[in-house]
Amino acid sequence: MIEKYAIGIDIGGTNTVFGIVNHRGNILYRGAIATSDFPVIDNFIEALKKALHPAIEEVGGIDRIHGIGIGAPNGNFYSGTIEYAPNLLWKGVIPIADMVSDSFKVPAALTNDANAAAVGEMMYGAARGMKDFIMITLGTGVGSGIVANGMLILGYDGFAGELGHVTVIPNGRYHPGTGFYGSLESYASATGLVRTAIEFLENRQDASLLRDIPHDKLNSKQVFECAIKGDKIALLVYEFTGKILGEALANFVMFSSPQAIILFGGLTKAGDLIMKPVKEHMEKNLLPIFQNKVKIIFSELKESDAAILGASALVWDITSKNA
Amino acid sequence: MIEKYAIGIDIGGTNTVFGIVNHRGNILYRGAIATSDFPVIDNFIEALKKALHPAIEEVGGIDRIHGIGIGAPNGNFYSGTIEYAPNLLWKGVIPIADMVSDSFKVPAALTNDANAAAVGEMMYGAARGMKDFIMITLGTGVGSGIVANGMLILGYDGFAGELGHVTVIPNGRYHPGTGFYGSLESYASATGLVRTAIEFLENRQDASLLRDIPHDKLNSKQVFECAIKGDKIALLVYEFTGKILGEALANFVMFSSPQAIILFGGLTKAGDLIMKPVKEHMEKNLLPIFQNKVKIIFSELKESDAAILGASALVWDITSKNA
Repeated sequence: MIEKYAIGIDIGGTNTVFGIVNHRGNILYRGAIATSDFPVIDNFIEALKKALHPAIEEVGGIDRIHGIGIGAPNGNFYSGTIEYAPNLLWKGVIPIADMVSDSFKVPAALTNDANAAAVGEMMYGAARGMKDFIMITLGTGVGSGIVANGMLILGYDGFAGELGHVTVIPNGRYHPGTGFYGSLESYASATGLVRTAIEFLENRQDASLLRDIPHDKLNSKQVFECAIKGDKIALLVYEFTGKILGEALANFVMFSSPQAIILFGGLTKAGDLIMKPVKEHMEKNLLPIFQNKVKIIFSELKESDAAILGASALVWDITSKNA
Repeated sequence: MIEKYAIGIDIGGTNTVFGIVNHRGNILYRGAIATSDFPVIDNFIEALKKALHPAIEEVGGIDRIHGIGIGAPNGNFYSGTIEYAPNLLWKGVIPIADMVSDSFKVPAALTNDANAAAVGEMMYGAARGMKDFIMITLGTGVGSGIVANGMLILGYDGFAGELGHVTVIPNGRYHPGTGFYGSLESYASATGLVRTAIEFLENRQDASLLRDIPHDKLNSKQVFECAIKGDKIALLVYEFTGKILGEALANFVMFSSPQAIILFGGLTKAGDLIMKPVKEHMEKNLLPIFQNKVKIIFSELKESDAAILGASALVWDITSKNA
């Protein structure tokens, strides 16, 4: 039997990364184009096709491609459309799965980026063999993908799993992107972490290395670097962020009672600085029947690969359905 | 073909109700025993058998019974055990499904009471034909049953769907049963509603019919009766309770994106008094992609029947699996 391949495409606000992936989750070729260079979607599809062409030829032509999986913010699995994604230049409803399928002449499937990451994790990562888990992506924003009974929860309209936008502190911190107050994303994202750092610097007297950095230049990497040097404010920022995230995870556990929660993305680089308070405050807020059961795990996938693998994993699903 | 029947048993802290149900969801016989009369589980099973015997004979004997479904607090579907249920006299882990099956000589399945209600609603009630919905039971406590992809979410350990215990107000109202602060149940249960009424009576100066009732005699029915008479404090109590519940539902919607949320139990008797603030505050806290999509519906099942129907509905499930 001739081996078939999947193409995985992850569309982000700044960059789109893609790769050709085999059934075992090995990425044979990979590449990227700048999403923001293409305000017109047709030009984007054209550029994508051009960029993928040499690699497709390399594996034996388009006949060897089983399908294309796409992960994108506000991507809807049912309709194959990206809908009103605030961080993309394409406004309104974009029928990207159909456009990609028409252009490449192979089946294409879409889901949101965090769902794609969850599928990737289930097929190739820390969630192999799990039927009930929650994936939380901690990057510029906070996303999530939820698997229960071995299936991704897409919900009635395909938008399930927006756990970054649940309210964790009623009337809490304002989120300029959504207009919400006190959502998880406003605290547990990289952006939220930096805002916490600025608030602590303003409201506390402690000496801190972070005081040498102008507030508008401060980023989460600097907070991390100061924390590992033992900077008190930076350590408190992680403690606070982990507490909010842990409390939120407790609520999620009482919803779907997962075997594990998998944390993914930039914030997880802080290791125990974030893991310790997350675990502590999750356990504290669980009913006894849930305590000391739910594993919290960092993703095993290389961050640059996970998005591609997750999107590509959609392909084996679509094709098995259509088979 | 000879018609087969299911027995549905709903075990509550005070009473256990049961019935013999046909495939169309008609309850042919029903009865009840006082749970709290039987501190020893073996005596309870014996009493249940005695109470059901005449009805079983009436439908043609035990051979006509396809199975027995049981709903109980902290009931675990996977293990068939009731585990550490705070409101039952039987302590520890009770293997009730096996005990019932051994005693009656038919298969038995167990789940928690709110999950049973969700299954009943899906088979016979407002959720017929739905694959993604959330059932919230608003009684003395707050329970929930969640269905996604057409399946009950049981979770890794069988205890999913404890939405009454999610934190909605960090450091909020104390819940003596769990030791938590600010859980949904401490506000949106009948008990929570009464506590809100007492707080409002203590902290506000408005005249109120509720002031004529000693606090320790106040119950949710009285608050309702005063509210329909236009009593300001009573109306504010419903407004507040609905706001908290609506905000919580918004969080649940962003988790599983259901087609509908079905509200069930005593509090729903208040009709629009509770529905209006719930809808308003749910919508206010949803991302635009979720707004004006999710129906909030009161259960269509008679409350006294729903528990029996829900438990009995488990039977057709077990038997189809074992077929």
